[in-house]
Amino acid sequence: MTSETLKLGQFKLHGKSGRARRATYMTSHGSFETPTFMAVGTKATVKAMTPEELKSCGTQVVLGNTYHLHLRPGEKLIKKMGGLHKFMNWNGPILTDSGGFQVFSLSGLRKMTEEGVEFSSHLDGAKYFISPEKSMEIQMDLGSDIIMAFDECLGYPATDEQIKKSMDLTYRWLLRSQKAMQRPESLLFGIVQGGLSLEHRKYSLQQVTSVDLPGYALGGFSIGEPIHLMHELLPQIAPLMPENKPRYLMGVGTPLDLIISIDSGIDMFDCVLPTRVARNGTLYTWQGRISIKRQEYKEDPGPLDPECDCYTCTNYSRAYLRHLFLSGEILGSRLNTIHNLHFYMKVMEKARKALDENRWEEYRDDCLTRFVRTDKNT
Amino acid sequence: MTSETLKLGQFKLHGKSGRARRATYMTSHGSFETPTFMAVGTKATVKAMTPEELKSCGTQVVLGNTYHLHLRPGEKLIKKMGGLHKFMNWNGPILTDSGGFQVFSLSGLRKMTEEGVEFSSHLDGAKYFISPEKSMEIQMDLGSDIIMAFDECLGYPATDEQIKKSMDLTYRWLLRSQKAMQRPESLLFGIVQGGLSLEHRKYSLQQVTSVDLPGYALGGFSIGEPIHLMHELLPQIAPLMPENKPRYLMGVGTPLDLIISIDSGIDMFDCVLPTRVARNGTLYTWQGRISIKRQEYKEDPGPLDPECDCYTCTNYSRAYLRHLFLSGEILGSRLNTIHNLHFYMKVMEKARKALDENRWEEYRDDCLTRFVRTDKNT
Repeated sequence: MTSETLKLGQFKLHGKSGRARRATYMTSHGSFETPTFMAVGTKATVKAMTPEELKSCGTQVVLGNTYHLHLRPGEKLIKKMGGLHKFMNWNGPILTDSGGFQVFSLSGLRKMTEEGVEFSSHLDGAKYFISPEKSMEIQMDLGSDIIMAFDECLGYPATDEQIKKSMDLTYRWLLRSQKAMQRPESLLFGIVQGGLSLEHRKYSLQQVTSVDLPGYALGGFSIGEPIHLMHELLPQIAPLMPENKPRYLMGVGTPLDLIISIDSGIDMFDCVLPTRVARNGTLYTWQGRISIKRQEYKEDPGPLDPECDCYTCTNYSRAYLRHLFLSGEILGSRLNTIHNLHFYMKVMEKARKALDENRWEEYRDDCLTRFVRTDKNT
Repeated sequence: MTSETLKLGQFKLHGKSGRARRATYMTSHGSFETPTFMAVGTKATVKAMTPEELKSCGTQVVLGNTYHLHLRPGEKLIKKMGGLHKFMNWNGPILTDSGGFQVFSLSGLRKMTEEGVEFSSHLDGAKYFISPEKSMEIQMDLGSDIIMAFDECLGYPATDEQIKKSMDLTYRWLLRSQKAMQRPESLLFGIVQGGLSLEHRKYSLQQVTSVDLPGYALGGFSIGEPIHLMHELLPQIAPLMPENKPRYLMGVGTPLDLIISIDSGIDMFDCVLPTRVARNGTLYTWQGRISIKRQEYKEDPGPLDPECDCYTCTNYSRAYLRHLFLSGEILGSRLNTIHNLHFYMKVMEKARKALDENRWEEYRDDCLTRFVRTDKNT
């Protein structure tokens, strides 16, 4: 790729296959190839992993959670320590969310006004206040490469009236976010809301893209709605997003979701799924999703996934992984996380290769067959 | 060293300084240099570590616990999977204990007879029976390189009569262990008991060394007795152990214990201390032992130990380690364990180098000054 000649925030489109896109995006900490899946590093660590392991799994971008880092250890401390990259020893691109989603999903006793949200910490009940300006300040202190605008994330279901009101607020907060974001090294992404109605989404998209930004995201998906509704809406809304900017689908999803979304024209993803379920012993393989604790793996000398070349599959048996899981050993969480992240990154790497080689449809259909079966298995 | 020409079970003494010894010992999975500290891998994993990380910390030998592995996943399963080395992906020497210590310290409802010990599992209360023959069978199934004889480990304190009776039983069990150990690739070590009396220790030593074995251990230390009693006894008993065989002090200890014991003529050690306390945030440094959760490290950008070149100290700040610990992050346990094991292995590596270079006393006194201060700090 020609990433070395790209300018900050430049999104270089290499090719398309239908709605699916293949591109390179440049940040202050180097470029990354899209479509890409970002590993979630909530509290300044992707759980159970070192940065070196993330890289060897194929991770290009790490996501940090503004809400969690604000509460503990605090962005001022991280800034003093040289910023989030140095603090957690990750020298690649970092995207931070705005804190909005966690404020609405994790915290207690919220009080929302035009100005922002007052809430109490899920850790100790202490009172906090986050506004668009505060969210920008936190993310700038963290030294994030991609900063997300502060938005309201409505729950599902919501009434038309609630959605309309919320979209308008999100738009006003976007304008305030843009004004407050004063860090030239960071790139601000706007977030399109609008629930599960195409009309609402179009309305929000028009509002958000009226602000010229280096990238745009779809928020408010994968929050409890029947997932087929997202699958149906994505191919209608994603292609309407600006062609020459990255499109980020927040908080999504399963391997099946990723393929369907790439096919709809999405470029960036993040989700806790691969790392969270790994620690619970659920593992994605090219033959389907498996639960390592099952009796059938007790004396299984084979690798987790015969089609996988990750560290876990190269060196350990299913019998050993089952033993580690049942014994509650940290190494079990580690090996499972390495495998699941490697699997997710491989799904994306293969998608990029298929797009490069003009065989996206073939790869997509192979994945759909495999992953639909997987979802049925469980 | 000339390890490539050594025969199985050969203990090649390279030099001495007073009672302290410098040697190489050969097993079926290669040789190791003594004095050495063995990393404890209770349930077929040194908690939180991969085999590659163990090696990069300087680990030469891993210890497996017969009691735990017998209960879960069972030695027959491990044998089917190709033995403990293959199961856990460790290709260096493995020593297994006899299970005796855990039977006496962990299990419930023990019933001891001349034949062996009936006990109920600490996991689910299931009934088990271990005899010298059973312990040998388990350790042979595991494919251990160094097998420990089945002994009785009395608690502290014990009466003279109890100790005497126990030593005689341990001796009869040693004879049965020797008869039952029929694996040419494994090396059987006998265990000297006798509590804290020099006379009893001498009596047990005479019994145990009347059996010609490739190594001998001191058991029954570090079980709750005032530690100065061990420090006083070791220089009197260790030098009486066979000169041309390795001397292994079981379950010991702190860095201070290691230096005092090496100075008494001990060659091998194992202890859960560095790995266990690491997970609780207690870290050994050349400047003293510290608790990473302390407020004073909150904004400390420096490494855990400026004198240390481990992965943790090279890449992370005290502030970050404190944050990981307070957040209960797995990476915190990992980084702390890496550091503590590296520290222990470095203490031993420096001891070997000092012995090689005829400056043991200088190194010993430097360590004593540092580590006595450390112990006072906490």
